[in-house]
Amino acid sequence: MKPGKIFRIAAASLLLILSSTFTFAQEATTGGLAPAIANDQMYNRAIHIMAMLLIGFGFLMVFVRKYGRTALTATFLLVSTALPIYMFAKGQGLFGYGSDEIVKLILAEFGAASLLIAAGAVLGRLKLPQYILLALLFVPFYMFNEWVVLGGGLGLIPADSVIDTGGSIVIHAFGAIFGLGAALTMTTKQEFEKTIETDATSDRYSMLGSMMLWIFWPSFCAALVTPEQMPHTVVNVIIALCGSTLATYLFSVSLRKKVSIADIANAALAGGVAIGSTCAVASHSVALIIGILAGGLSTFGFAVIQAKQQKWMKLIDTCGVTNLHGLPGLMGGLAALPVIQGLNMGSQLSGIGLTIIFAFIGGMITGKILPVMGRKTEAYEDADEFLDAD
Amino acid sequence: MKPGKIFRIAAASLLLILSSTFTFAQEATTGGLAPAIANDQMYNRAIHIMAMLLIGFGFLMVFVRKYGRTALTATFLLVSTALPIYMFAKGQGLFGYGSDEIVKLILAEFGAASLLIAAGAVLGRLKLPQYILLALLFVPFYMFNEWVVLGGGLGLIPADSVIDTGGSIVIHAFGAIFGLGAALTMTTKQEFEKTIETDATSDRYSMLGSMMLWIFWPSFCAALVTPEQMPHTVVNVIIALCGSTLATYLFSVSLRKKVSIADIANAALAGGVAIGSTCAVASHSVALIIGILAGGLSTFGFAVIQAKQQKWMKLIDTCGVTNLHGLPGLMGGLAALPVIQGLNMGSQLSGIGLTIIFAFIGGMITGKILPVMGRKTEAYEDADEFLDAD
Amino acid sequence: MKPGKIFRIAAASLLLILSSTFTFAQEATTGGLAPAIANDQMYNRAIHIMAMLLIGFGFLMVFVRKYGRTALTATFLLVSTALPIYMFAKGQGLFGYGSDEIVKLILAEFGAASLLIAAGAVLGRLKLPQYILLALLFVPFYMFNEWVVLGGGLGLIPADSVIDTGGSIVIHAFGAIFGLGAALTMTTKQEFEKTIETDATSDRYSMLGSMMLWIFWPSFCAALVTPEQMPHTVVNVIIALCGSTLATYLFSVSLRKKVSIADIANAALAGGVAIGSTCAVASHSVALIIGILAGGLSTFGFAVIQAKQQKWMKLIDTCGVTNLHGLPGLMGGLAALPVIQGLNMGSQLSGIGLTIIFAFIGGMITGKILPVMGRKTEAYEDADEFLDAD
Repeated sequence: MKPGKIFRIAAASLLLILSSTFTFAQEATTGGLAPAIANDQMYNRAIHIMAMLLIGFGFLMVFVRKYGRTALTATFLLVSTALPIYMFAKGQGLFGYGSDEIVKLILAEFGAASLLIAAGAVLGRLKLPQYILLALLFVPFYMFNEWVVLGGGLGLIPADSVIDTGGSIVIHAFGAIFGLGAALTMTTKQEFEKTIETDATSDRYSMLGSMMLWIFWPSFCAALVTPEQMPHTVVNVIIALCGSTLATYLFSVSLRKKVSIADIANAALAGGVAIGSTCAVASHSVALIIGILAGGLSTFGFAVIQAKQQKWMKLIDTCGVTNLHGLPGLMGGLAALPVIQGLNMGSQLSGIGLTIIFAFIGGMITGKILPVMGRKTEAYEDADEFLDAD
Repeated sequence: MKPGKIFRIAAASLLLILSSTFTFAQEATTGGLAPAIANDQMYNRAIHIMAMLLIGFGFLMVFVRKYGRTALTATFLLVSTALPIYMFAKGQGLFGYGSDEIVKLILAEFGAASLLIAAGAVLGRLKLPQYILLALLFVPFYMFNEWVVLGGGLGLIPADSVIDTGGSIVIHAFGAIFGLGAALTMTTKQEFEKTIETDATSDRYSMLGSMMLWIFWPSFCAALVTPEQMPHTVVNVIIALCGSTLATYLFSVSLRKKVSIADIANAALAGGVAIGSTCAVASHSVALIIGILAGGLSTFGFAVIQAKQQKWMKLIDTCGVTNLHGLPGLMGGLAALPVIQGLNMGSQLSGIGLTIIFAFIGGMITGKILPVMGRKTEAYEDADEFLDAD
Repeated sequence: MKPGKIFRIAAASLLLILSSTFTFAQEATTGGLAPAIANDQMYNRAIHIMAMLLIGFGFLMVFVRKYGRTALTATFLLVSTALPIYMFAKGQGLFGYGSDEIVKLILAEFGAASLLIAAGAVLGRLKLPQYILLALLFVPFYMFNEWVVLGGGLGLIPADSVIDTGGSIVIHAFGAIFGLGAALTMTTKQEFEKTIETDATSDRYSMLGSMMLWIFWPSFCAALVTPEQMPHTVVNVIIALCGSTLATYLFSVSLRKKVSIADIANAALAGGVAIGSTCAVASHSVALIIGILAGGLSTFGFAVIQAKQQKWMKLIDTCGVTNLHGLPGLMGGLAALPVIQGLNMGSQLSGIGLTIIFAFIGGMITGKILPVMGRKTEAYEDADEFLDAD
């Protein structure tokens, strides 16, 4: 565990140095409501998002048959590391100062969601302490990107000129590309050849995770919108999810002859990913179209692209985060260009471009650092770290 | 898939024609609260209901051992078809005009709940695209009944004179009887003779669905009541559920010698079904009595009536929706007669009668149409439609 | 069932006699909000707590491989018995009068949580009707302790001078010690020697319960705090849970070489137990420290103390509630001494002491009474009470 210790100290030092340099004020979005009311409204969404983080992402990853105990424990460790670090750093003024407790909590949850996406790409190939290290390395990169793209950090993009209400770009695409970068540098030949097994019980657990994400996705996207925007936003998210769910079924059965339950559990959510940027302003018809396109794109990714991509890039993306969060996330960010009137197109494109670059570099660095703590003996199996694992 | 296409076009045309003829204004029930506050209160309940639709109904149906992947995928498809259609039709003024986004969403969820109940009767015997067709056929019938019974449509019953706050009549009984009608016309001899298998894992998944429904049932019944009525309503629902849960255990062990977990997972919810009509006004003692009676009635249905009914009517009601939603729903609607002071008894009885008729006719028509798309090769099994199904 | 009947009548009589003697007014904590708003805020937390009671505690107990059907049914019966009795008794003025419906509901849920903890100690060794009897016996003891420790009952401790916002003392420690008392008097030699089996599926169900508790714990602790205290309280609870989750992993792997998934599913929650008393006032750093210490203490309990304690006390604590709720609960109550300024130390220590005494006596009496209804034939197995159990 010695190298882990070194990196922990390094990360902490980095936080302290940076925290004294860059700051910007976080605006509350209470829309004229009394704080006692606005806080409670945001609190309920924060709890909904927590259900997405733990049961949603956690159980979605239980599809790996012999790795369920680790997937759920890793989810616990990733969330428990990311939330306090993010909130502490934000409270200290790192990459933007935050004073409101519930707003800070929601932003930290957004970061944890992005982290869980990144972890999905390398799931099954890290030892438990490496998930903690992954969280420690991920959070500063994530906060830096969020600050540059949304908060005007470094002066590259004017603050608030990139439209990404529900995080298609800075949460989903960032997490997926970060994970891809990490997978690229650390996938071994042995991992590359090993089959990932599933069974009926692990598939149904995976659907539980998927449904939990589907149900609470409107709260994720509407967590910080104004009360006036909320109704339109949540209905948009639901319509986009309906669209992607139906499209996923149609594409899965068309592309594969028989339906893959993995397509359903994953690509059905692509509408939520892709509507993220434009959820507060798109019309319902546009939301439906974005959802259908995202579901089709994501299913095409799982059914057709994934095998080729993995061969070509010589990597394993365990949960297929490229197809669920990467492509639909980018699509969602780009959808703002035709959909949103008065959009600063240069900002939006710069935001997407910088996110791709920062995420990929961050992921590659992280993929180089993680193996310093060693490699998991047997990929995708609980047995080398858990008692009584069958 | 050609016949499916024809019906889709027919359903769409029907929607368009009808949408220009009947309209009535939907009243908001904000009870003096600012919209920003009332919307958020309703939104939280809308999300609770979404959890009931997907994880609640979905996992309750996973009790069929080899059909879990399909049951969950079908739930996704039913909900994803019903919600946008209902909201679109309502927005166009079909069977009553709705302008408030969150109210429309909740009403659409009510329709989706009723649809899931209907689908429970024929579960395991439809191919996946037939669930989509079922949703397309069900929604107009449901909206028509809702409009006639609650909205004063066709001038048969004065608007708002039938008391059915939590939908005992128009949601539960309608869905169950619709499903029964469909099962009646489409059950084959082969299906009739095939045993439906369960195991320990599918039983525990089923209990997860049941508990999810139990937990959020108060939000279902109180979704659109005034803020003043909310506390009394939600406590009534909880008390009724406690009553039916205890009664279910007592009746199950008395009628069968040993307890059936299927009784527990299903009949425990009968109190929620039956308190629906009177939840806002019954006293707590009456709520307890309604809950106990509903639990007893439902368990008696599962333990004694179901086998005889299926033989007699030559049909299979896969999930026993007659016993969980049909009988307790009708009981709940009738309970309003002695319980609610100043009730328009003629309206209440007409509302129940018309619901039975419309639901049964709608179901029979649907049961005739569905097989046009063919029959499932092997009932209650994932394997003919899913990859890797064991 | 005759002896059960006798006790039911006795308990009801006890309730009636006591209800006419002691009363005190329950204060609402609306903090200046309109009732229509305050009630809705409390209602959402009440529903969150309901999810903890049924799916949280229920599925956490499914870790016993062949006892899942009973564990879930018992959860249903315990909750369905406790809630109406508590609300009825409170409405009648027993151990403090309560008029507000939602406040009464939340207090009843607190009692049900404590009951589920107590039941965890004897899980697998009661017949189903004995769980109902356990609830009937537990609730009066619980209400009496709550009234003496928090409500100034009997004049032993000034009302509101014991600080226990989230129930470390009166909910968690009380339930655990009550369960311990019951286990002490009723564990048989045969039960003592029988191994409790788990498997991969039951372990993952257990993690589902654990995560459900983790997610909604902030609502449990903040259910009745003022709107001003809410943000700080919920962030404290989340930080404490993050601390205990990380500490649990580190202690589990250190003490056992390999990680035990039972440690993770249980001890990760110890931070929520221990922060209960001080959640509204501790600083975030203190919350983190309390969480880490509680996670460490609880894991040490499961890994080292439990086997010795069970041998020494000649009892089986099925779910290890001593280690999850007992020790961390007492730790949380004592943590108020250094943490809270202006605390009445005498009151706090008396409250803890009286809780220990009342709970232990209540549990021992209950453990003597329960076996009057007979013993379960085969411990930890569904088969003697359920149809089709494998």
